Amino acid sequence: MSRIVDLTLPIVEHWRYGIKFEKPMSHANHDRWEATAYNLQSHWFTHIDAPIHHDPNGLTLDAYPIENWCISDCLVLDFSDIADNTGITYEMLEEANKPFKDKHYDAVLIRTDRGRKVPWTEYDFWDNSPYVTADGGKWIKEYNPKVVGFDFPQDYEIRKIRTAGPKDPIYQPVHEIVLKEGKILMIEYMTNLWEIKSPTCKLIALPLNTKNADGSQIRVIAVVD
Amino acid sequence: MSRIVDLTLPIVEHWRYGIKFEKPMSHANHDRWEATAYNLQSHWFTHIDAPIHHDPNGLTLDAYPIENWCISDCLVLDFSDIADNTGITYEMLEEANKPFKDKHYDAVLIRTDRGRKVPWTEYDFWDNSPYVTADGGKWIKEYNPKVVGFDFPQDYEIRKIRTAGPKDPIYQPVHEIVLKEGKILMIEYMTNLWEIKSPTCKLIALPLNTKNADGSQIRVIAVVD
Repeated sequence: MSRIVDLTLPIVEHWRYGIKFEKPMSHANHDRWEATAYNLQSHWFTHIDAPIHHDPNGLTLDAYPIENWCISDCLVLDFSDIADNTGITYEMLEEANKPFKDKHYDAVLIRTDRGRKVPWTEYDFWDNSPYVTADGGKWIKEYNPKVVGFDFPQDYEIRKIRTAGPKDPIYQPVHEIVLKEGKILMIEYMTNLWEIKSPTCKLIALPLNTKNADGSQIRVIAVVD
Repeated sequence: MSRIVDLTLPIVEHWRYGIKFEKPMSHANHDRWEATAYNLQSHWFTHIDAPIHHDPNGLTLDAYPIENWCISDCLVLDFSDIADNTGITYEMLEEANKPFKDKHYDAVLIRTDRGRKVPWTEYDFWDNSPYVTADGGKWIKEYNPKVVGFDFPQDYEIRKIRTAGPKDPIYQPVHEIVLKEGKILMIEYMTNLWEIKSPTCKLIALPLNTKNADGSQIRVIAVVD
């Protein structure tokens, strides 16, 4: 009997995003039906990144048919003991992967339990998160999964977005190395990885079916035997 | 080796919906990244309906944890030979299910190949579609799957929405009987059911993670052995 774990943040009002929910039709207004309107952006909430997000000449999500990656054997690398503001390096990833060297997994999740320690609604979640270093990004690129996911803001300078001006530079080596150079799909801002309770699972990840996408909301579950 | 079939309409500009795509950040504008903004409503494109859509006192999607229905054994009832503007009745559903009586399936799809015969971008797709009759809705309610899906506008009067005023009555017996009375989740406006090429499959259906939802976009795939 297998167990399903939802690894997806809820889509709700949040200071980080400009999402609003409205009722174009409602029972309260004696309309025919109840319906809800909402605005999204391709990199809000739990979402997948395609290379064109960072690379003007990069691939869109259309270049990655879901049949090739939406159901994957998945390895969960556990860094749940990591301290705040600490980088996950090449060496740490290599060490964490040692027990699983005999098999290559199509999906890799990097787990820090950030959302269990600090609610994602608080500035602290973003401002003092662990992150992946540039050489950690190199490890992911060399491992070359079809998809990599994180339960924390994986680039150090993501914390700057909250206060940066629209044209301020923000350096994101993991995006550069994994997404742009490695052409590896990245799933950002996952949650509940601690509920998988196993170093391996099946990962099922289905994005919104937008076209030519630089990114898209995605619902992700783990199926654990 | 199993095969994956995407059963989901693309999310693109369409006369039936008011969706627009914009680029709040772009490489062309020398921004840091490329990102896309879009507006949605809970019953646009391939989506799931929760009872509150039709019932002021009905359940929202929160009452149906995805663990209970997102992966299901699925029966595909084939009405691909049906003529335009023709109702699918209790008797026809009973007859189509006869060869599969020995097992109860958690998901049932009703297939007419509407989108193979007429593009969903044309008025004709909506205006002359086959539909499910009120007693056909009763059959679905009695069968009581966890989720039922359709590749055509399953209520006859859905064709009226295109020209109706906001307060004009539109009678939808399938919504009333299956969704409101039966409390059965409905997936509307699926496509590609003809690519399953088997009367049974695994259905995997993952909606956007909106909360208290009356409906939500959903990505649906079939896994065929």
